[in-house]
Amino acid sequence: MLIASRSKLLFIGDSITDCGRKRPVAEGLFDPLGNGYVAQVNALLNASYPDRPVRVVNTGCSGNTVRDLKARWQTDVLDLKPDWLSIMIGTNDVWRQFDMPLFPEVAVTPEEYEQTLDALAGTTKPLLKGLVLMTPFYLEPQPTDAMRARMDQYGRIVMAVAKKHGAIAVDTQAAFDRALKHQHSSNLSWDRVHPNSIGHMILARAFLDAVGFVWSPVRREKA
Amino acid sequence: MLIASRSKLLFIGDSITDCGRKRPVAEGLFDPLGNGYVAQVNALLNASYPDRPVRVVNTGCSGNTVRDLKARWQTDVLDLKPDWLSIMIGTNDVWRQFDMPLFPEVAVTPEEYEQTLDALAGTTKPLLKGLVLMTPFYLEPQPTDAMRARMDQYGRIVMAVAKKHGAIAVDTQAAFDRALKHQHSSNLSWDRVHPNSIGHMILARAFLDAVGFVWSPVRREKA
Amino acid sequence: MLIASRSKLLFIGDSITDCGRKRPVAEGLFDPLGNGYVAQVNALLNASYPDRPVRVVNTGCSGNTVRDLKARWQTDVLDLKPDWLSIMIGTNDVWRQFDMPLFPEVAVTPEEYEQTLDALAGTTKPLLKGLVLMTPFYLEPQPTDAMRARMDQYGRIVMAVAKKHGAIAVDTQAAFDRALKHQHSSNLSWDRVHPNSIGHMILARAFLDAVGFVWSPVRREKA
Amino acid sequence: MLIASRSKLLFIGDSITDCGRKRPVAEGLFDPLGNGYVAQVNALLNASYPDRPVRVVNTGCSGNTVRDLKARWQTDVLDLKPDWLSIMIGTNDVWRQFDMPLFPEVAVTPEEYEQTLDALAGTTKPLLKGLVLMTPFYLEPQPTDAMRARMDQYGRIVMAVAKKHGAIAVDTQAAFDRALKHQHSSNLSWDRVHPNSIGHMILARAFLDAVGFVWSPVRREKA
Amino acid sequence: MLIASRSKLLFIGDSITDCGRKRPVAEGLFDPLGNGYVAQVNALLNASYPDRPVRVVNTGCSGNTVRDLKARWQTDVLDLKPDWLSIMIGTNDVWRQFDMPLFPEVAVTPEEYEQTLDALAGTTKPLLKGLVLMTPFYLEPQPTDAMRARMDQYGRIVMAVAKKHGAIAVDTQAAFDRALKHQHSSNLSWDRVHPNSIGHMILARAFLDAVGFVWSPVRREKA
Amino acid sequence: MLIASRSKLLFIGDSITDCGRKRPVAEGLFDPLGNGYVAQVNALLNASYPDRPVRVVNTGCSGNTVRDLKARWQTDVLDLKPDWLSIMIGTNDVWRQFDMPLFPEVAVTPEEYEQTLDALAGTTKPLLKGLVLMTPFYLEPQPTDAMRARMDQYGRIVMAVAKKHGAIAVDTQAAFDRALKHQHSSNLSWDRVHPNSIGHMILARAFLDAVGFVWSPVRREKA
Amino acid sequence: MLIASRSKLLFIGDSITDCGRKRPVAEGLFDPLGNGYVAQVNALLNASYPDRPVRVVNTGCSGNTVRDLKARWQTDVLDLKPDWLSIMIGTNDVWRQFDMPLFPEVAVTPEEYEQTLDALAGTTKPLLKGLVLMTPFYLEPQPTDAMRARMDQYGRIVMAVAKKHGAIAVDTQAAFDRALKHQHSSNLSWDRVHPNSIGHMILARAFLDAVGFVWSPVRREKA
Amino acid sequence: MLIASRSKLLFIGDSITDCGRKRPVAEGLFDPLGNGYVAQVNALLNASYPDRPVRVVNTGCSGNTVRDLKARWQTDVLDLKPDWLSIMIGTNDVWRQFDMPLFPEVAVTPEEYEQTLDALAGTTKPLLKGLVLMTPFYLEPQPTDAMRARMDQYGRIVMAVAKKHGAIAVDTQAAFDRALKHQHSSNLSWDRVHPNSIGHMILARAFLDAVGFVWSPVRREKA
Repeated sequence: MLIASRSKLLFIGDSITDCGRKRPVAEGLFDPLGNGYVAQVNALLNASYPDRPVRVVNTGCSGNTVRDLKARWQTDVLDLKPDWLSIMIGTNDVWRQFDMPLFPEVAVTPEEYEQTLDALAGTTKPLLKGLVLMTPFYLEPQPTDAMRARMDQYGRIVMAVAKKHGAIAVDTQAAFDRALKHQHSSNLSWDRVHPNSIGHMILARAFLDAVGFVWSPVRREKA
Repeated sequence: MLIASRSKLLFIGDSITDCGRKRPVAEGLFDPLGNGYVAQVNALLNASYPDRPVRVVNTGCSGNTVRDLKARWQTDVLDLKPDWLSIMIGTNDVWRQFDMPLFPEVAVTPEEYEQTLDALAGTTKPLLKGLVLMTPFYLEPQPTDAMRARMDQYGRIVMAVAKKHGAIAVDTQAAFDRALKHQHSSNLSWDRVHPNSIGHMILARAFLDAVGFVWSPVRREKA
Repeated sequence: MLIASRSKLLFIGDSITDCGRKRPVAEGLFDPLGNGYVAQVNALLNASYPDRPVRVVNTGCSGNTVRDLKARWQTDVLDLKPDWLSIMIGTNDVWRQFDMPLFPEVAVTPEEYEQTLDALAGTTKPLLKGLVLMTPFYLEPQPTDAMRARMDQYGRIVMAVAKKHGAIAVDTQAAFDRALKHQHSSNLSWDRVHPNSIGHMILARAFLDAVGFVWSPVRREKA
Repeated sequence: MLIASRSKLLFIGDSITDCGRKRPVAEGLFDPLGNGYVAQVNALLNASYPDRPVRVVNTGCSGNTVRDLKARWQTDVLDLKPDWLSIMIGTNDVWRQFDMPLFPEVAVTPEEYEQTLDALAGTTKPLLKGLVLMTPFYLEPQPTDAMRARMDQYGRIVMAVAKKHGAIAVDTQAAFDRALKHQHSSNLSWDRVHPNSIGHMILARAFLDAVGFVWSPVRREKA
Repeated sequence: MLIASRSKLLFIGDSITDCGRKRPVAEGLFDPLGNGYVAQVNALLNASYPDRPVRVVNTGCSGNTVRDLKARWQTDVLDLKPDWLSIMIGTNDVWRQFDMPLFPEVAVTPEEYEQTLDALAGTTKPLLKGLVLMTPFYLEPQPTDAMRARMDQYGRIVMAVAKKHGAIAVDTQAAFDRALKHQHSSNLSWDRVHPNSIGHMILARAFLDAVGFVWSPVRREKA
Repeated sequence: MLIASRSKLLFIGDSITDCGRKRPVAEGLFDPLGNGYVAQVNALLNASYPDRPVRVVNTGCSGNTVRDLKARWQTDVLDLKPDWLSIMIGTNDVWRQFDMPLFPEVAVTPEEYEQTLDALAGTTKPLLKGLVLMTPFYLEPQPTDAMRARMDQYGRIVMAVAKKHGAIAVDTQAAFDRALKHQHSSNLSWDRVHPNSIGHMILARAFLDAVGFVWSPVRREKA
Repeated sequence: MLIASRSKLLFIGDSITDCGRKRPVAEGLFDPLGNGYVAQVNALLNASYPDRPVRVVNTGCSGNTVRDLKARWQTDVLDLKPDWLSIMIGTNDVWRQFDMPLFPEVAVTPEEYEQTLDALAGTTKPLLKGLVLMTPFYLEPQPTDAMRARMDQYGRIVMAVAKKHGAIAVDTQAAFDRALKHQHSSNLSWDRVHPNSIGHMILARAFLDAVGFVWSPVRREKA
Repeated sequence: MLIASRSKLLFIGDSITDCGRKRPVAEGLFDPLGNGYVAQVNALLNASYPDRPVRVVNTGCSGNTVRDLKARWQTDVLDLKPDWLSIMIGTNDVWRQFDMPLFPEVAVTPEEYEQTLDALAGTTKPLLKGLVLMTPFYLEPQPTDAMRARMDQYGRIVMAVAKKHGAIAVDTQAAFDRALKHQHSSNLSWDRVHPNSIGHMILARAFLDAVGFVWSPVRREKA
């Protein structure tokens, strides 16, 4: 596994990362990480590797766009001095273009999105042992849906930024698309944006596979 | 307008009709009709025709399928002795096939849906001055979506049952499709099922147009 | 319709405008406009003209007099840069003269009322595409009632200010008086001040008729 | 004073009597009588005549008409074996004719009102040491108001029933009319039906004067 | 009656005056005066003299001693510019000597009590149309009780201060002692300090008698 | 100590025993015994004699008189099969004679009190390993107070019943009187009935001394 | 994986299984399975095998012993007709022997435990496609702890019953012991009984490994 | 007893001292001291020595380490000017090393613990009439448990600091160990850290024995 023992692994993002986490910074006793993929990653990492514990921290905030991340980057990322950082952002940047078409000031254009994400990744990467960029996603399988098409555009930006800075990229949309071949989106999400616990586990699996997680490390090491 | 002065007009259906109405029967003082299309119809009818008041009643129940309507038909329709009755049902009959694919017992097949609706309409129509059947709808514009295709099938059943029994049919899906030409579904609904207040007004307008509502009855009568 | 597509339409006033709206500024997702005439206007405008959306904003505050409007005019009107503005104020200016006769400091005299409203309308009108002044009203049909007589006096001030500044005037009292010919005031309001949903729709209709709203714009355009 | 020491004095009526009293029967410790005229009568009687205590009981119920009183007469009057009984009923009997004009089943006609009140008074009077009948009232000074005119009609029925059975009659409307000469109704009541604490004291005074209450009994006895 | 029409009458004191009044200053609509003697005085004054209304204000605060009154005298008395002022203080000054014998810093000695009350009365009296000083009281009839004896000492201070400054003195202890001849203290108070509604009416009567209140002013004027 | 290891010791009584205990029967985990003397006895017994644990049970009920105990004796005493039983009752039997003088039906006369307590003690004593009767008390030191005099009468009845049946008597009034020599009653109780935690410890000490409790059993056994 | 597509998999047990699940039967929409290992198993199974969905049901109840399971076996197991059943019980059977040593009636002896579990497993196994028996556990690593030793005894009973009936056995204690080699028990549980989310994932992993779960089924099938 | 009459005795510590005490400083009326050993000490001292009252104050704070005590020492100890001071701290200093092994910043090392406690005791002792240092404890009887071994190390530091400064030392661990010979730790504590009421009484007894408390001072003085 890529993440070393006793590392601090920070997740930042929007409501999909937040999931009811404790404030101001979620970490420590009494399962403060919320009930989404961050908590699942924490449980899977530490239950599978009891000899290599990882300190998981969550600073996701519901409703955030990349513009909001930038505004709180100092306090919610840099001040916490993570070893590893995972960013998943973009859903609201896109969604506001469709559910609030008369409020252009709250959406984020592709240009601003790319520029901001690039700057955050570029300045932070050198301070980290590892950076993970997860694409935003939309639980709508038909590529002709206008919002899905736009989300794919933002996903491609994430992949490009990751490549540019040598970050690990996680294509969450691809992970969901594999599941959507077998079931309707309403089986995974109420609103095609917020996954249920199964959908969150799809995210957790995508993240873990990207960082070299092994379900049975002992057996692997034996082999 | 088709509905005579001092008529009792009863709406029954699922959560889209319910909208937080008062229990057990919503009618009377303090705006008990919920915050959906039923309340809007009540306000528009009585504000536009102050000389021809209509008594609006709401017995919609969240989560109901046509099977649930049948089970409470005696107490929630017949015992209330309405002059006019409006039924809008079918969303959950279809939805459960997609968001709970492992629970076939909670969904309603097209056969059961048609048979039940037909029986309710057939036995009740003779007791009424007017019967309105509103189709269920899905705020998904792409006809290739599996759930939209299924919903259209149920909508066609409603239109056929209405024709068979001489009821007024309201094609709500068509009304929404006209709006969806100009905006994304997320501008009208959080989950493509429950409309916001604009979406509810599309329902109210479709109902009112079907019963001969005129925005300015006085001027019309003058003309 | 007079209000152009994608306009921002701001309503300000007292509790009749407020109706439980969200704070600090009510606009955007999740039906934040309260449950009164503002929400009804929003639903009717956007449901009837899906191709010409209007952004409706509500900054009404319960208990306000015109003196309170003046105090928050910068933040709650000017800073929001509306295209259209609707003002309905005066109920509390008058009411306090009758329900708190020993507290002259909380009521507003006709002189102060006229002077303040005139200044607000005069300085703001040039910044707008349209200004609507709605009279205050009292759901008491007998003109000999002391409070009704006083409210009529304030209504006449509104009409005169509107005329002076070329604003659209809405005589809400006349709209209610038409309904009160057919029913007792207690059928429209608990306290002769706060309308129920039918009374609010009377307000919404009066507003909409004044700005050229058409129930079926498509058919009209065809004709 | 007419009411003997250690008498049990029971008040029954609608919300004006209820005023948040404790359930099922309001009497005893911790001021359970509600915050209306019943509590004021209790305090005035027992504070003015500490040597002649009276046990005050309240079984008023919000929303009641005389039809409701009849339905609970056995448990809420007869079973409690009062020495004195005071009845004030009729507001809702009349009000429902005006605020719910489409619901004739919830209002009470003058005929039913008179017949029911007459029967209750006639059968109960022989079991009592004293019976007080208080008229219903409407805090609307203009006799041309339709609801005021109707309320006056019910008030006359109360006066006639009292006379027929030798009960003490309390003309509450006359008591309020004296106050309304000097102030607007909104200074005494939010909705012209439910008095504020000053209005309740007008009721308490009217009751007390009718039963021979003296503010300073000691001085009177000296004289 | 001594208090002129449209006077502002302010009550200040401890929990017996407070009684759950609204904050920061209790006056105006919706019965904000609490549920004690202040509310009773307000109701009796305004119901008995509808042609001579009085504006009653309550700034009592639970737990206060005369030291606390002094600390908030500017904001809670002087800034409010009353015409008449009533002060009832001293219960906590004494009580703390008995229920918190190890906390001498929270009690107030007779010397401090007299000096503070004298200063407040002396500087404020010239600004008023009338000043009423009500003694503190203890609902313990036996003069040998240590706390009753101490309370009597403070009551005598009040009487002396009133006399010195020409204020109206109200001997509340004497009023209660008359009632305690006929009943045990537990019939008037849970803890011998806080009266129930009957006990509060004893206070209200004592106050009203001191300011020349007449139960039936009309009849008196006729005579 | 008289109570053998692993005995079940049941306390029954009124609010002084209840003290917020858990329902229906208070015993077992999470300190369910309330916050009064019963909990203190439990903690002192089990902390002082860790090798001789006692199972303490509380079925006190606020407001109870001996008449209420009789009514629930089967379920709340006999069915629980205690080894030891402690009864402290009588406060409400007496109190109601003074705080509700017009409600003779809720008080209990000395005759009924004695007869009922005697019957309960007489029939239950043979089923027990030990019976403790605690007198009721009143935190009023002056024997001339009417309620104190009456409470002393009931206390004498308890002592006599205990003697008759060979039960252990606990004179709680005497225990409190010793403390009242040094402090005012308001230092031990808000209302002279319900003790604070210090007052409850006076009760606990009185009980424990009566059953042979020793603070330091180990040292005693050594000696 | 042993569990076939579209199987119904029911978990029953005590608070460790319950974890705040919905009542009366937890299954279906909105993540009703609680926040413990049952929810984790559900998420992992359905996220890893989207083409082979499993219907997971939870009827665990906090505080239950095997005696409680027996009492509700008909409604909470048999009536639900599961394909697969997992039982984890015994913690409370043992715990009550140590935290409530004076309440032998609430604990379950090894004899009763074995006999009851054996009967439930024996009669139910023939109705199932698969039965899983999970041992109880105690997060105390030292075998000399009295409660750990007792829990091991109950774990051995589970293993024996599983073997006798051909059920799949899951040794949860062994799974935890592996983790406890690397960390103190307080890192996994507040009270050595209820695991945190990491501890629950240890349970979920132990269950999943026992039923042939593969983290990456697709890749495996390719290989 | 060592503590003189009318002394102020302050307890400071962590959650075991806090126990839900009132904020900001717990002392005075209405049993504000929480429900732990501090309240028990208060009740036992004042109930046993009514002629020598002691003023007990509690400023314990849940979660505190010695580092937190240092930070609030001025406001929560020195400013309160106690005569006697009792400190019990260290549980969290140790616990965080085991339940949050990845958060070294929240634990306190033995070196920092000793240095801080020594400084607080050394500078404060001269200002006091008496200082009591209570060791932290862990309700785990096996000395080989890693956390118990660490806690014993901190306990030895407390004993050494007490000796150095002439403070009274209370070995709470020894007091608990005596009880744990006879029962499992789960009978005294849910989590081996927070005692139930019996465990708190073990603490109260240990404290009281150390300050010369006598259960029956009167009898002793007689002897």
